[in-house]
Amino acid sequence: MSFVPNQFDDVSIATIRTLAADVVAKANSGHPGAPMGMAAVAHVLFSRFINANPKNSQWFNRDRFVLSNGHGCALQYVLLHLLGYKLSLDDLKAFRQIDSKTPGHPEFHHTDGIEVTTGPLGQGISAAVGLAIAQAHLGATYNKDGFDLINNFTYVFAGDGCLMEGVASEAASLAGHLQLGNLIVVYDDNHISIDGDTNVAFTEDVPKRFEAYGWDVLHVDDGDTDLKSIYEAIAKARTTPTPTLIRLRTTIGYGSKQQGTHGVHGAPLKADDIQQLKTKFGLPADKTFYVPEDTYAAYKEVGVRGAELESKWNALLESYKSQYPTEHAELTRRISGKLPENWEKNLPVYTPADAAQASRKLSEIVLSKLVPAIPDLIGGSADLTGSNLTRVKGMVDFQHPSTELGTYAGTYIRYGVREHAMGAIANGLSAYGGIVPYVSTFLNFVSYAAGAVRLSALSGHPVIWVATHDSIGLGEDGPTHQPIETGAHFRALPNCAFWRPADGNETSAAYKWALTTKSTPSILSLSRQNLPNLEGSTIDNAVKGGYVVHEVEGEALTIVSSGSEVSIALEAASKLQAEGIKTRVVSIPCWLVFDQQPQEYRLSVLRSGAPILSLEALSTTGWQKYSHEQYGIDTFGASGPYLQVYEKFGITGTNIASVGKKVVDFYKKKGGDVVSPILKAF
Amino acid sequence: MSFVPNQFDDVSIATIRTLAADVVAKANSGHPGAPMGMAAVAHVLFSRFINANPKNSQWFNRDRFVLSNGHGCALQYVLLHLLGYKLSLDDLKAFRQIDSKTPGHPEFHHTDGIEVTTGPLGQGISAAVGLAIAQAHLGATYNKDGFDLINNFTYVFAGDGCLMEGVASEAASLAGHLQLGNLIVVYDDNHISIDGDTNVAFTEDVPKRFEAYGWDVLHVDDGDTDLKSIYEAIAKARTTPTPTLIRLRTTIGYGSKQQGTHGVHGAPLKADDIQQLKTKFGLPADKTFYVPEDTYAAYKEVGVRGAELESKWNALLESYKSQYPTEHAELTRRISGKLPENWEKNLPVYTPADAAQASRKLSEIVLSKLVPAIPDLIGGSADLTGSNLTRVKGMVDFQHPSTELGTYAGTYIRYGVREHAMGAIANGLSAYGGIVPYVSTFLNFVSYAAGAVRLSALSGHPVIWVATHDSIGLGEDGPTHQPIETGAHFRALPNCAFWRPADGNETSAAYKWALTTKSTPSILSLSRQNLPNLEGSTIDNAVKGGYVVHEVEGEALTIVSSGSEVSIALEAASKLQAEGIKTRVVSIPCWLVFDQQPQEYRLSVLRSGAPILSLEALSTTGWQKYSHEQYGIDTFGASGPYLQVYEKFGITGTNIASVGKKVVDFYKKKGGDVVSPILKAF
Repeated sequence: MSFVPNQFDDVSIATIRTLAADVVAKANSGHPGAPMGMAAVAHVLFSRFINANPKNSQWFNRDRFVLSNGHGCALQYVLLHLLGYKLSLDDLKAFRQIDSKTPGHPEFHHTDGIEVTTGPLGQGISAAVGLAIAQAHLGATYNKDGFDLINNFTYVFAGDGCLMEGVASEAASLAGHLQLGNLIVVYDDNHISIDGDTNVAFTEDVPKRFEAYGWDVLHVDDGDTDLKSIYEAIAKARTTPTPTLIRLRTTIGYGSKQQGTHGVHGAPLKADDIQQLKTKFGLPADKTFYVPEDTYAAYKEVGVRGAELESKWNALLESYKSQYPTEHAELTRRISGKLPENWEKNLPVYTPADAAQASRKLSEIVLSKLVPAIPDLIGGSADLTGSNLTRVKGMVDFQHPSTELGTYAGTYIRYGVREHAMGAIANGLSAYGGIVPYVSTFLNFVSYAAGAVRLSALSGHPVIWVATHDSIGLGEDGPTHQPIETGAHFRALPNCAFWRPADGNETSAAYKWALTTKSTPSILSLSRQNLPNLEGSTIDNAVKGGYVVHEVEGEALTIVSSGSEVSIALEAASKLQAEGIKTRVVSIPCWLVFDQQPQEYRLSVLRSGAPILSLEALSTTGWQKYSHEQYGIDTFGASGPYLQVYEKFGITGTNIASVGKKVVDFYKKKGGDVVSPILKAF
Repeated sequence: MSFVPNQFDDVSIATIRTLAADVVAKANSGHPGAPMGMAAVAHVLFSRFINANPKNSQWFNRDRFVLSNGHGCALQYVLLHLLGYKLSLDDLKAFRQIDSKTPGHPEFHHTDGIEVTTGPLGQGISAAVGLAIAQAHLGATYNKDGFDLINNFTYVFAGDGCLMEGVASEAASLAGHLQLGNLIVVYDDNHISIDGDTNVAFTEDVPKRFEAYGWDVLHVDDGDTDLKSIYEAIAKARTTPTPTLIRLRTTIGYGSKQQGTHGVHGAPLKADDIQQLKTKFGLPADKTFYVPEDTYAAYKEVGVRGAELESKWNALLESYKSQYPTEHAELTRRISGKLPENWEKNLPVYTPADAAQASRKLSEIVLSKLVPAIPDLIGGSADLTGSNLTRVKGMVDFQHPSTELGTYAGTYIRYGVREHAMGAIANGLSAYGGIVPYVSTFLNFVSYAAGAVRLSALSGHPVIWVATHDSIGLGEDGPTHQPIETGAHFRALPNCAFWRPADGNETSAAYKWALTTKSTPSILSLSRQNLPNLEGSTIDNAVKGGYVVHEVEGEALTIVSSGSEVSIALEAASKLQAEGIKTRVVSIPCWLVFDQQPQEYRLSVLRSGAPILSLEALSTTGWQKYSHEQYGIDTFGASGPYLQVYEKFGITGTNIASVGKKVVDFYKKKGGDVVSPILKAF
């Protein structure tokens, strides 16, 4: 294949550049520089290579495109409009306005044609590694001779900012290890970042670094105008057996009077600059949001080609159905996002007679039942497999077959010590479709991935974090590894289900909820130490997010707790009961889910009439929402055998009983009604 | 220089290996593999190269040593003991026990001779870049002809785990850019991580990657026994003008029957294995915690040499005093950790007549006064200088002089888009001494650095984060950039002062507190948008962390708020007042500091008698501690002009007045006393 120019190329590229400048100018906010600099490569990529149907942005085998430098989204919005996605000129005019389809950075599930949320630097390119893994895995699993059903590419645009971020380094190293030949990254090497020339901070040899990761690196020295070289580089990248970085030298804000400076990075061009830009590129200087008919015509053709590709693919899928009915049924079920019928019947159920176990072990038992039943599950750990207990018997590693360590059909990813990339890759796996990713590390190190978890929540990717060793119960490793603030952090993150199950049934409930939701990530906070199975815990109770685990009428005190401390609360309650102080115990394994229950139910759990004391071996921050008094750990932890650490921090049945008495006495003295903390004015 | 073996080398190395095995075995917890594998290089480094005085671990010009793979700390504790630091054999026997000096991972300020806290992977090597920058900077600032006062090296041991972490990639890229020739990293290339052989996830070409960063890379193929090659590599590394990575091929758990497998990574050796190990290395198999006299003797000599080095240095410093009295006074003041006399007199003071300004701008004004007055301040930004407003007039960039972009005497660091490394490097700058680092990015992206901020707090490094664009007030950039959970996260982090100043005086107060503390990091959460200067705000009030900004007797309502919402609370109060509803307003710019005030004071601020409503444009999580009712944002934000975004979320004077009325009505109906939320049972 070689590049065949056509009469529409120049006008199309000119349209992209001027339209992007108009979009940013009208909003009086945004980043014109990257869109103008990358217009040429965007045009070549979308007009010559990308297989997608603008009329059905969900066609499964479409090529994925990720604008990792999401601040340049005027570019992407302009392209989506020109290609005929559900994005009108009026939408472009509403760029960065409240409730528009064109927010300041691209958002998944918000704008037609956006594959993953980007903007926070490094996230897009890392999620793209997940998209590429997803293709490789599903292709290896479902493609058959004559049925190359899943063979799309993942294309990424990334700037200097993305490549400076550690998360991108982690993801790129893993992509090289995994030999993801379907991943093509165009590096916009424009030498400019917000602080000015990149030579103030970023002078490393980027191509050499990517070669060290095992990538191919190609070079295009004139990314502004040399369409032929751009074309040839992309064409070559599609043939290599490894991921490819195309280093594309561009001029930021190409065509502007300020081109090549950081003056065009993050501020609109001035009116006269835009006028000269239009004149320079042969478009009418006095028109804004002007799209020549030739440009629309050119992109319409691209859309027609995409629609034809989808039609052919649908026919192929039909023919696959007759030859491979089982695989077809499974693949189409996965594409639809439905789990296998009755999958939840596999969830283990416990009684108090069952042996005490660590909730990380209980999680392993759940996974050992679900992984064989749900092929959609793709697991992995950031080099803590034996501690997280996430690789169940029979799983095969996802590895390039040449390594003889696994295959692309394998469902367990060795992420290495790369928590942040793991989180971002999981977002990509989820965004691709047909896959439910679970990932694992110690709870304390989920914080390393905070940027990616935030985008899971914002995008609604139902990623599952198996976060073990979730408190001082981790013991000897000490305060560097003992989470304190982590619960407050992820409970405060909107649309993040932070689950802290107390026993076997609660662990099953957490998985049940996490796998049922289609739009919320879950963090399962799991113990290292053994936990008894509780009287009163059931999956049906726990899946509500909170319930009464020990009921008493006419109580003097309620203790509300979570996870490994619920059994300690029960022990305290029993001690108090022995002294005639009637004590209820409430378990709230998940705040987000409990808050979604009807007010009446919540008030029956956290009822008025007696004080409520919270107990958790984490920061007390936020427990005030559910309790009058709080017991927890608002300092760092300590290194030692875990029972001694619990003792040191007073989290024992005996001490909590004594604290409970203080609470009861205090409220007795205080007098008056004790009103539920969840009864609110608005 | 070439290696001169002595009769103590073998016995010393054997002692390190067997002692480390004993330490882990006695604790029945820990990591013997790395200490045993790295015993030889540790011995060569400490006996031949490291300039330090075990009797005074604070000698300023000592070489810094960082064990980045902190899980191998049995190695470091053993060495500190052998060298004569304040760490006894009994301390070694108390490894990983409650309140011992030998916790599960090394902790700064906890154990004599530990330079920075390590364990969370990637943090040590990144903090070491900060230690190396500190040396380069102070050397360039204070050294004179004949007075090479500050010329120490920073040595790091790091394993595969550290090198997989993105934070380490970021830091290494910056270290190469800055040409830190004083930084020497020994990479323990043992091919083993927790998941087994590193070939499951980490097959990149590490030496090539570091070369791409601009490092020298040296190779030692037998790190177990080839002392001569180890010596020569370190000697060479000290002469190169760039940072050096020494790739040292070792056998994890060298000497164990399981050597070279991940079986020796994170679990004690069995008793019989330890016995054969001792026999193999010529030590008595039946003795535990045995240190031959020869070993003590060898290390005593090292200590004597270190004490002499310090003596000579002290003499040099005395002589410097007479020739350079001004520089001497400044340097010794900085080493002592005291700021210049009366520095706080430079803090700007405001009245309500002063123009409204963004608190990021108010921060810039503070810095413009303090930077010239306090040479200890070393600023920087993660490529957002023009937005963070952190580089005040007259500052010179910290750059290698060959770049002609700055000098090593410069005080402003261009961190690049590397938030996590920036946080870790700031920890190193602070740990070195003589430097007060401030770093900056958008508040939302401090989360990228959560791992490093956590270690600031745990270690007590008074790092200052200038965290601008701190809410939906950032406007058009949208929800990907608008923090929601960030306040709850860092307020829940122990020993982290999260400041959210409301105006000019509060901004000055935040800096006053942040620069006065010696043991707590501060995050200054600052607005993009303009904020009026408030009647009632003073530095003295605000530095208490909370105060009454608008007092009324006999109030029906108190609104408690922070930062950019305090002026909105005042507007609401004024509207309520107009309707006859007396409303007080409280500002709590910093929870941590407010909580440290006497109970009586706190109760006077958040007094009983009327309901308290909190208002903040962030998650409500945690505000229940100070209020009966909470108004905030518990979803993600929105992209649009900021006033419209505030309107969308109901954070306006009008709506908050209406919410306030609901609160007053609710409590009227409810009846009974309204008790302060901070009156607690225990």
